[in-house]
Amino acid sequence: MAGVERFLPTDEARALLDLTRELAAEELAPKAAEYEAEGRFPREVFRALGRFGLLGLPYPREYGGGAQPYAVYLQVLEELASAWLTVGLGVGVHTLACYPLARYGTPEQRERWLPGLVGGELLGAYCLSEPHSGSDAAALSTRAVRAGDAYVVNGAKAWTTHGGEADFYSLFARTADTGPRGVTAFLVPAGTPGLSAAPPERKMGLKASTTAQIHLDDVRVPAERRVGEEGQGFPIALSALDSGRLGVAACAVGLAQAAFDVAVAYAKEHRVIDFAGLGFLLADLATQIEAGRAVYLAAARRRDEGLPFTIQAAMAKLFCTDMAMKVTTDAVQVLGGDGYLADHPAERYLREAKALQIVEGTNQIQRLVISRRLAEE
Amino acid sequence: MAGVERFLPTDEARALLDLTRELAAEELAPKAAEYEAEGRFPREVFRALGRFGLLGLPYPREYGGGAQPYAVYLQVLEELASAWLTVGLGVGVHTLACYPLARYGTPEQRERWLPGLVGGELLGAYCLSEPHSGSDAAALSTRAVRAGDAYVVNGAKAWTTHGGEADFYSLFARTADTGPRGVTAFLVPAGTPGLSAAPPERKMGLKASTTAQIHLDDVRVPAERRVGEEGQGFPIALSALDSGRLGVAACAVGLAQAAFDVAVAYAKEHRVIDFAGLGFLLADLATQIEAGRAVYLAAARRRDEGLPFTIQAAMAKLFCTDMAMKVTTDAVQVLGGDGYLADHPAERYLREAKALQIVEGTNQIQRLVISRRLAEE
Amino acid sequence: MAGVERFLPTDEARALLDLTRELAAEELAPKAAEYEAEGRFPREVFRALGRFGLLGLPYPREYGGGAQPYAVYLQVLEELASAWLTVGLGVGVHTLACYPLARYGTPEQRERWLPGLVGGELLGAYCLSEPHSGSDAAALSTRAVRAGDAYVVNGAKAWTTHGGEADFYSLFARTADTGPRGVTAFLVPAGTPGLSAAPPERKMGLKASTTAQIHLDDVRVPAERRVGEEGQGFPIALSALDSGRLGVAACAVGLAQAAFDVAVAYAKEHRVIDFAGLGFLLADLATQIEAGRAVYLAAARRRDEGLPFTIQAAMAKLFCTDMAMKVTTDAVQVLGGDGYLADHPAERYLREAKALQIVEGTNQIQRLVISRRLAEE
Amino acid sequence: MAGVERFLPTDEARALLDLTRELAAEELAPKAAEYEAEGRFPREVFRALGRFGLLGLPYPREYGGGAQPYAVYLQVLEELASAWLTVGLGVGVHTLACYPLARYGTPEQRERWLPGLVGGELLGAYCLSEPHSGSDAAALSTRAVRAGDAYVVNGAKAWTTHGGEADFYSLFARTADTGPRGVTAFLVPAGTPGLSAAPPERKMGLKASTTAQIHLDDVRVPAERRVGEEGQGFPIALSALDSGRLGVAACAVGLAQAAFDVAVAYAKEHRVIDFAGLGFLLADLATQIEAGRAVYLAAARRRDEGLPFTIQAAMAKLFCTDMAMKVTTDAVQVLGGDGYLADHPAERYLREAKALQIVEGTNQIQRLVISRRLAEE
Repeated sequence: MAGVERFLPTDEARALLDLTRELAAEELAPKAAEYEAEGRFPREVFRALGRFGLLGLPYPREYGGGAQPYAVYLQVLEELASAWLTVGLGVGVHTLACYPLARYGTPEQRERWLPGLVGGELLGAYCLSEPHSGSDAAALSTRAVRAGDAYVVNGAKAWTTHGGEADFYSLFARTADTGPRGVTAFLVPAGTPGLSAAPPERKMGLKASTTAQIHLDDVRVPAERRVGEEGQGFPIALSALDSGRLGVAACAVGLAQAAFDVAVAYAKEHRVIDFAGLGFLLADLATQIEAGRAVYLAAARRRDEGLPFTIQAAMAKLFCTDMAMKVTTDAVQVLGGDGYLADHPAERYLREAKALQIVEGTNQIQRLVISRRLAEE
Repeated sequence: MAGVERFLPTDEARALLDLTRELAAEELAPKAAEYEAEGRFPREVFRALGRFGLLGLPYPREYGGGAQPYAVYLQVLEELASAWLTVGLGVGVHTLACYPLARYGTPEQRERWLPGLVGGELLGAYCLSEPHSGSDAAALSTRAVRAGDAYVVNGAKAWTTHGGEADFYSLFARTADTGPRGVTAFLVPAGTPGLSAAPPERKMGLKASTTAQIHLDDVRVPAERRVGEEGQGFPIALSALDSGRLGVAACAVGLAQAAFDVAVAYAKEHRVIDFAGLGFLLADLATQIEAGRAVYLAAARRRDEGLPFTIQAAMAKLFCTDMAMKVTTDAVQVLGGDGYLADHPAERYLREAKALQIVEGTNQIQRLVISRRLAEE
Repeated sequence: MAGVERFLPTDEARALLDLTRELAAEELAPKAAEYEAEGRFPREVFRALGRFGLLGLPYPREYGGGAQPYAVYLQVLEELASAWLTVGLGVGVHTLACYPLARYGTPEQRERWLPGLVGGELLGAYCLSEPHSGSDAAALSTRAVRAGDAYVVNGAKAWTTHGGEADFYSLFARTADTGPRGVTAFLVPAGTPGLSAAPPERKMGLKASTTAQIHLDDVRVPAERRVGEEGQGFPIALSALDSGRLGVAACAVGLAQAAFDVAVAYAKEHRVIDFAGLGFLLADLATQIEAGRAVYLAAARRRDEGLPFTIQAAMAKLFCTDMAMKVTTDAVQVLGGDGYLADHPAERYLREAKALQIVEGTNQIQRLVISRRLAEE
Repeated sequence: MAGVERFLPTDEARALLDLTRELAAEELAPKAAEYEAEGRFPREVFRALGRFGLLGLPYPREYGGGAQPYAVYLQVLEELASAWLTVGLGVGVHTLACYPLARYGTPEQRERWLPGLVGGELLGAYCLSEPHSGSDAAALSTRAVRAGDAYVVNGAKAWTTHGGEADFYSLFARTADTGPRGVTAFLVPAGTPGLSAAPPERKMGLKASTTAQIHLDDVRVPAERRVGEEGQGFPIALSALDSGRLGVAACAVGLAQAAFDVAVAYAKEHRVIDFAGLGFLLADLATQIEAGRAVYLAAARRRDEGLPFTIQAAMAKLFCTDMAMKVTTDAVQVLGGDGYLADHPAERYLREAKALQIVEGTNQIQRLVISRRLAEE
C-alpha cells in the first residue's frame, strides 16, 4: 500500500495517513492472520486506534473528534482495511454508530455523550436489521413502548457487528405502527439489563469481526437517550447508511489493493508476470481498483461539499464491493494452488470480500436505490 | 438435482444414474457438511461407491470396470459432485490414477493389477505436480534411477489429492535428463517403504479431500511396475489429464447446480424470486449451467467416438469451472447474509468452487493449451 | 468454417452439410458484402437454396420437405449464417413461417399448400409483432372479423422480415377480445388485395434482409386459410417461436464463428497471435463459441426426441446471441483500426450481431421466460 | 446531460461549461445525425467553437489559450462528445496536435505559431501512426532527410483524423536509424507541396470525422518548423498521447452518458423502466458511467498537479472506452428493435463507441502500458 499515492488536502491529513500506515503495519498486520484463524475479536487494537484519535475522525473537534473531511477519513479506512478488513470495517461501524447522536442529538445529548463515543475509549455497534427484515429496514418489528420517563424495548436485532463486544448500541425500534414513519432511534449502553448478545455467527470470513444477534428483553432505555424525535428513526437510519456505505466502499478498495499487491508480488517472485495473459489480467485489476478509489472519493467529495450523495454512495458501494470480489478471486488465481492455502493471505481476502457485497444493504438493494432514482427523475 | 433431465443412451445407464442419485442422497449428502467442517476424509464413502461399482465406470468390464461411455461416467460424477464435491472429485482422481495402467499397461500388468484398481477395494492418487513445477509438468525433478530389476525413486510430489489416504499412486518420475522426453510412469502401492505423506494442506475449502505432499526417499519400485516405456511418461500424463479435465468440468457443473438449487429454493421460500432483477440473475445462472453441461457432454461425446478431444476438454474445464465460480458467488448473494453463514451450504460451495479453477491445470494453462492450438492450425 | 467438425447422424446429413458449405462458398460468400452495402434483397439466392431443397429441411418428405432432424437443420443454418447472416436468418424465418401450417394445419390444408411452402419456390414471412406490442405478443390489436366464408383483416404488423419480398405471410390476428385466447393464425398469399408493405426500415446492419411494416386494409382471407381453430393462434405462435429461437441461436454461432475466423486469420497474418493477452482473448472466444454450439445442439436434441424444449430454446437464444455480440465486438478489436473499416467484414459482423440479441424476443424476454419457469417449478 | 452535476473550481469554469452546453445544444446536436449519415465534415462547427475559444482551452492565455486546468478542459470535451462525438474527438485531436509546439517549441516558435494554432482559426491533425506500424509508434518509417535549411519528408501516415481537412499537421518522421531515438517532430502547414490526403476511410461510425492516409512526397519542411531536437520525437509523441488518452476517456464518458440518457428516456416513455431486470441494468450502467467520470477526472487532477499520470491516463482510456462500448450496446438493447434503427441515435452511438476502444492506442496497448509498469515497479 506504500505505493498508493494520495491527494490529501492538508499537512494534517498527510500526517494522519502516515500515522495510519504506521499503526496498520505495527498493530494490525502482524495480528490479522492469527486472530482471523482463531475468530478472536481485537478489542485492544480498537483501543490503540482510539488512543490515536482514529475512532472519531469525521466528527467535530469540540467533542473530541478529528474534524476531518470524509474524503480523508475514508482513506484512513482504506488503509486500515488493507491491513486488516475486520478493523477497517469495525472503525466504519463505530463511526456509523456515532452518527445518529452526532447528527441528530440535541446540544445537551452531544455535550454529554459524544466525547465518550468519538473519544476512543468506547466502541459502538449499529442495530437496525432484524432476523426477518433483511435489508428492508422499514419492516422492523422491535418495539419501544413509552413507560414514564423511559422506553421499554423488546425484540431482536440481527447481523450486529461488534454485537456483544460493543460499549454502546445505536438502536432502532418501532414506537408506532405507521411503517417507516413509526421508527425511533436510541442510544443504549452495553450494560443495560435485558440487552444480551447471542453466540457469534459462524461466517465464511471476517471471523475476528464478531457478528451476533442482539436480544432485547424489557430493556429500559431512559427517554433522554432517544435520539431525534419519535418517528424520525427511519430517516436517521437511511442517512447514517449513506455515510456507512461510503465506508464499506473504501474498505473494499483497501482489501482489493491488498489482494492485488499479494498477487503482483507473487507474480514477480515466481517470474510469471510476463506469462501470456497474466500481465493483462493484472492490468485490468489495477484499472478496476483505480476506478473504485476514484468513485468513492468523488462521492465523498460531494458529502464534504454538502451536496446530496445518496445515489453516489450506493454506486460507490456497488462498484467497489463487486470490484473487490472480482479482484480477490483473480488474485487467488494468480497464485494458483498456493492461493488456495491458508499459508497465503489471498484465500482469506477472497472469503472476506464476499461479505462486502452483502453488508449495509446487499448490492441488489444498492441497485434498487439507484434504479428508483432513475425512475423518479 | 432430481430436476436435471438427462439423455442417457441405455437402460443400464439410466439405472446407474438412479443408483448414483440414491447413493448421493443416502451416503453423501448427510455427511458432507460435517466432514467438511471437520476436515475428515470419507474413506468409507469411497468404499461404498466401490461396492456398487462406481470406482471403475469407464474401464472394461473384463477387468471389473463398468464399461460405460465417458458421457455417462461424467454424469455420474456430476451427480456425486452435486451432493459432495470432495467425493465427485475423488472419484475423478481415482479414475485418473487408474488411467495409465488401463491405457498403457501391458496385458500382463492389466491382468494382474487393473481388477484391484477399478474393482472398488482400492483408492488411487495421481502424483504429477511438484512443489516448484506448478502446472508445468515438463519441469519435474523427481528421479527414478534403474537399479537391477527395480527403480529407486527420490523426490517430492505436491498437491496430491488422497495423499496419505490412497492405496496406490500413479507416479511420474524422471529417468533421463531429456526434458519432457525423460519422464516415466510408475504404479506404486501405498505401503512401499520410503513413500510418505506430509501433513495435509490447510485449504480454503474441500477440507475433507486430503491434499498432501508426497515424499519419496529411496522408494524401490520393481521394474514390472513401470507403466509404458521409459520416456513415455509425459505423453501418458498429458493424455490422462485430458480425461481428468473432463471430470473436473463435470464436477463443476454438479457443484454449480447444487448452489443454484439452494439459491432458487431460498428465493422461493423467502418470496424474493420476483424481486426486481433477481429473476434475471437466476435466469442467467441457469443458462450458464445449461451451457456448461452441454459443453462437457459434447467433449465427452468426441472422446467416446474416438476423436481428438484435448482442446475440447480444455475448453470444457475452463468454461465449467469459471462458470461454477460465478454461479456459487452469486448463489451466496441470493441468500444475502444467510449465504455467508456456515449454516447454509452456499458459503461452502463458493469456497469449493475456487479450487476447480486451479486443479488439473489452472484456467490460465487451459487458455494456453487452446491458444497454442489456434496459433498452430 | 471448414474447421468446424460436426457430429452428423447419417451419410445423408453429411452430404447435406457438404452441399451447404459448397453453396455457401459459391452463392453466398461472394455476394454478401456487396448486397449488404447496397441493401439489396437476395431473392435469387433463396431460389437457389430452394432448388437444392434447403427451404424445407425439417418438414416431412411427403410434402416435399427434407425430413431432417432439427439438430441437422440447425447446423445447415449455422453454415449459411457463417457465410451470410441475412440468408441464414432468412431461411430460419421462412421455416418459421411454414411451421403453423405444417404443425397445425388440417390434412387437407397441408396437402394443398405445404408442398408449395417447403418446396423451394416460395418464400415466407412471419407476422406476429405489432408497432406498439413489441415483444409482448398477447397485446396484439390487428383484427380479423368473420364475414361469410372469409375473414376481413385490418391492422399493421411490425418488424416483418421479408416484408414486401415474401410470397406468403403467416399472420396472427385477433378474432375475439379475450387477450391471448382471442388470437388466430392465418396463411395469407402476398398478392392479396389490401396487404401492402411500408418502405423497409433503415437498420444498423442486416441491410440486405428487408424488414418492413405490413399494412392490412380490409384484407379478405378465405376461412379455409385459417390455421388451427379460432383462438388457438397464441399457442401456435409461441410454439413456432420456440423453434424459431433455436434458428436464431444457430445463426448466432455461425456469425460468431465467421468473426472469430477473420480475427484468427488476421492475428496470424500480422503475427500478433502471440502478442501478450491476445492469445488468451482468442482462447476465451473459441471456448464461448464451442459452448454456444453445444447448448443449441443440446436443445435441438430435446426437440428431436419429442421432449419439451421451450426453456432450453430460450437459453440457447440468450446464450448464443449474447456470445455473438461479445465475439464480434472483440473480433473487431483484434483487427484494431482495420476492423473498424468496411474493407474487412469484421465491422459488418458486429453490426449484424446486435440484431440477434433483439429478434424473436429480446434477450430480456428470454430471461423472463426462463425466470418465470424457475418461479413456477 | 443537463443532469450531470459537475465540480468546477472557478466561476470562469462554470461559465465555460454553460457556454459549452449552449453551443452543444445549438450548434452540434441539430446537425449530428444528418452530417454523420452523409459523412460530411463539420468544418464550420469547429470554426464556431474556435470563435468562442474552445480550441485552445488548456494552453496559456498569453498565446491566446484558455488557461484552463485539464480537469475543466476534459469536462468541456465530455459535453461536446455527448452532443456529437465527431466534434468532441476532433477538439481532442486538435488539442493533441497543438501539444508538441506548446510544450516543446522554443519561445520563438511558440510566439510565432501558437496563437494561430490555439486561437481558433486553424484546425490541426496529428500524424504518428503509419500503415504498417499500427499502435507501435517506434516502428515508423516515414523519413525526414536534412537538406540545407529544410528537411525533405517522404512516406505515408495512416489513420489521420482531420486528414485532408486540417490546416496544420503535427508530424513525426525518422531522422536516424536508431529506433525510437531516431524520430523527430515537425509542424507542417496543410498547403505544403507534396503533402496530400488519400480519400477518406469508410468506417463503421464517426463518418463525419474524416480519417485519411496522408502521403508525403518530397515534402520540404523548413528546419525552423522542427519541434524539439532531432531524435526527441518519440518522447514528445508519447507525452502527447498521455494527454490525448485523457481526451478520449472524457469523450467516451460523454458518449456513454448520451446513450444512457436516450435509454432512460425511452424506458420511461414506454413505461418499461420497472420491467423486471431493466431497472437493474440501468443502475449498473449509471454506476459504470459514474466510475468512468471519476477515474478520468482523478487522472486529470494528477496532470493538473504536475504529477506523473501516464499509467492513470492509460487506465482512464481503457476503463472509459470499454465502459462506453458496454453502455452503448446495452442502451440499444433497452430500445429493442427501435434501438437498431437509424431513426434513433442509439445505433449510431454503438457504432461510434467501438472506435474509442481502438484510437490513440488500442485497449490492448493500454493494458501493455499498465502491465509493463507493474512488472517494473
